[in-house]
Amino acid sequence: MSLRFAPEWQTTRWFNTPEPVTLAGLRGRVVLLHAFQMLCPGCVARGLPQAQRVAELFAGAPLAVVGLHTVFEHHEAMGPEALRAFLHEYRIRFPVGVDAPGPQGDPIPRTMRAYAMQGTPTTVLIDARGRLRRQVFGVHDDLLLGAELGALLLEAEHSEQRSQIREEEEGGGGPRPECDGDCCSAS
Amino acid sequence: MSLRFAPEWQTTRWFNTPEPVTLAGLRGRVVLLHAFQMLCPGCVARGLPQAQRVAELFAGAPLAVVGLHTVFEHHEAMGPEALRAFLHEYRIRFPVGVDAPGPQGDPIPRTMRAYAMQGTPTTVLIDARGRLRRQVFGVHDDLLLGAELGALLLEAEHSEQRSQIREEEEGGGGPRPECDGDCCSAS
Amino acid sequence: MSLRFAPEWQTTRWFNTPEPVTLAGLRGRVVLLHAFQMLCPGCVARGLPQAQRVAELFAGAPLAVVGLHTVFEHHEAMGPEALRAFLHEYRIRFPVGVDAPGPQGDPIPRTMRAYAMQGTPTTVLIDARGRLRRQVFGVHDDLLLGAELGALLLEAEHSEQRSQIREEEEGGGGPRPECDGDCCSAS
Amino acid sequence: MSLRFAPEWQTTRWFNTPEPVTLAGLRGRVVLLHAFQMLCPGCVARGLPQAQRVAELFAGAPLAVVGLHTVFEHHEAMGPEALRAFLHEYRIRFPVGVDAPGPQGDPIPRTMRAYAMQGTPTTVLIDARGRLRRQVFGVHDDLLLGAELGALLLEAEHSEQRSQIREEEEGGGGPRPECDGDCCSAS
Repeated sequence: MSLRFAPEWQTTRWFNTPEPVTLAGLRGRVVLLHAFQMLCPGCVARGLPQAQRVAELFAGAPLAVVGLHTVFEHHEAMGPEALRAFLHEYRIRFPVGVDAPGPQGDPIPRTMRAYAMQGTPTTVLIDARGRLRRQVFGVHDDLLLGAELGALLLEAEHSEQRSQIREEEEGGGGPRPECDGDCCSAS
Repeated sequence: MSLRFAPEWQTTRWFNTPEPVTLAGLRGRVVLLHAFQMLCPGCVARGLPQAQRVAELFAGAPLAVVGLHTVFEHHEAMGPEALRAFLHEYRIRFPVGVDAPGPQGDPIPRTMRAYAMQGTPTTVLIDARGRLRRQVFGVHDDLLLGAELGALLLEAEHSEQRSQIREEEEGGGGPRPECDGDCCSAS
Repeated sequence: MSLRFAPEWQTTRWFNTPEPVTLAGLRGRVVLLHAFQMLCPGCVARGLPQAQRVAELFAGAPLAVVGLHTVFEHHEAMGPEALRAFLHEYRIRFPVGVDAPGPQGDPIPRTMRAYAMQGTPTTVLIDARGRLRRQVFGVHDDLLLGAELGALLLEAEHSEQRSQIREEEEGGGGPRPECDGDCCSAS
Repeated sequence: MSLRFAPEWQTTRWFNTPEPVTLAGLRGRVVLLHAFQMLCPGCVARGLPQAQRVAELFAGAPLAVVGLHTVFEHHEAMGPEALRAFLHEYRIRFPVGVDAPGPQGDPIPRTMRAYAMQGTPTTVLIDARGRLRRQVFGVHDDLLLGAELGALLLEAEHSEQRSQIREEEEGGGGPRPECDGDCCSAS
């Protein structure tokens, strides 16, 4: 099975970074993309703290943690100024982009649509070559997430040394439909 | 030592109740007033869940749990529409009032000022006669909070049966200055 | 409804106290009796820590926390020397008595039988006059336990001042049959 | 730096397995060896649950979780019968060996000595070729443990396909001296 490349994200503005962050610009690094909403209980209680811990624990590794504010409900309550205050109060340090609004009549923002995310929190793992390797809707298990990151980081390291990564991989996983009840579902 | 009566709260609007809730109208019931801000991490993670559990566990007792949104920072991010969405997402069912803005130039809202609250979360216990018995800044311990509620409820029950409550009580406690670090401090 | 007096406990030895502790000797104090087994997961993870927190938080109150090792299974693995090591490693400081073995053929020890305990952990609340007021099988909720302790302490205080406690109380509660699954059931 | 091979363990008996488990017999599989004592609070509360979750989450992977009961204190309280009851009550399903007692006068058992473990809990990771890759004293972080397991599993898979693993690796990590306070230290 061929792996598909992760779509470039479409955003309107960024926090915690002097420049917009692009997926293309992160080539060579493993990427953890964390899609959240500031009023989503499961994101606040578990998803964002997990993303923050990944950012801290793997600070020395070729890994980028990127947040994406994918608002698909309560738009009036989660504007950029509210998000700015939220990121400040919750001490979130990694770059966070605001997902671009969908076209007329679509409450789902564009990146969320492009990745076919089911809701928030959603965790996406992208390998160092830009390929989508894992997408989990709901809170992801620490041990499993660690295992996936460890494998992607080792793979990236080998790839760099040998330039001989296999094009085919087992799975890569589509969205996991289960959710532990703390999720905000888009449909 | 005489106990002072808790000041009536001053609010601009209410959620989760068809009518505004007044302190005077709760005479005869023990009151737990929980002052919070929707972007205060300690409120969201621990204070509000505790208030909700009190509301559920003591549902049959003469006890009222009342929330008070005391916004003293990031005002633009925590308006009534944002609060409405927040209460919906976090499934908070008890009545919540919005503390009235302070006079010109004062970022501290009026009820918060009247109670001399230091920040959020703050838990206030008011006895069945309307007297301020306990005010805790920061997350309050479940066992201690339970003990205080149990004593106030028993006292209220005896009072009703005998109309002979002592006017003097040991303490009643002003605000406790300690905070475990998860608080939003007003100063 | 009259409240029954709690039966005196029957023990073979004690830890963390120079003298055996008797229920009669605790008259005038509220008593929390915590029945546990050192190999009971629910006791170790939740029951004993809760009892310890009560002992610490109410250190200044007329309240005694007493442990009772009610072994009804795996007797060979939970003898006095094993218990001594356990109490040391888990830093349990309150007095702990070893429940006396049942008569020939009865695996249930004597105090456990006298209180008709269903298993471990079991928390028993005894008022300052020695009356059994509450018995909970399984982990007890912190807020509810606090409320019960607060009411019993206030009652004891009033009683002392006025010597006029009501003989009748609402309930007193027999064993609660529910258990959250972490209990060791005797039957 | 060359990696050293993990020493074979020395045991007197086993639980949860029909046959003794040897390290040599696990060649080709990644091994998580969890050294614990049944009366060590940090092992019971966190180390053993983590090992159990690894066993469950990676049930389909070429990974073996093995427990080792390394008793270096309170020997009389942690004999084989006590351990049998403990494993039953805590529902531990993976194979557990009893570390062989040290020679005359040495309270440290033999495998614990051979690995120079500092106390319990200790988590040891051994790669599919039998080499010692990581040894952590104290509770190990879920995300980091997951990352290490993920990397070792990927490495094992590549190794099998290509038989060309690098003999030299970065580190492998000696014992981490820190402990979060819940550990039982051997010295």
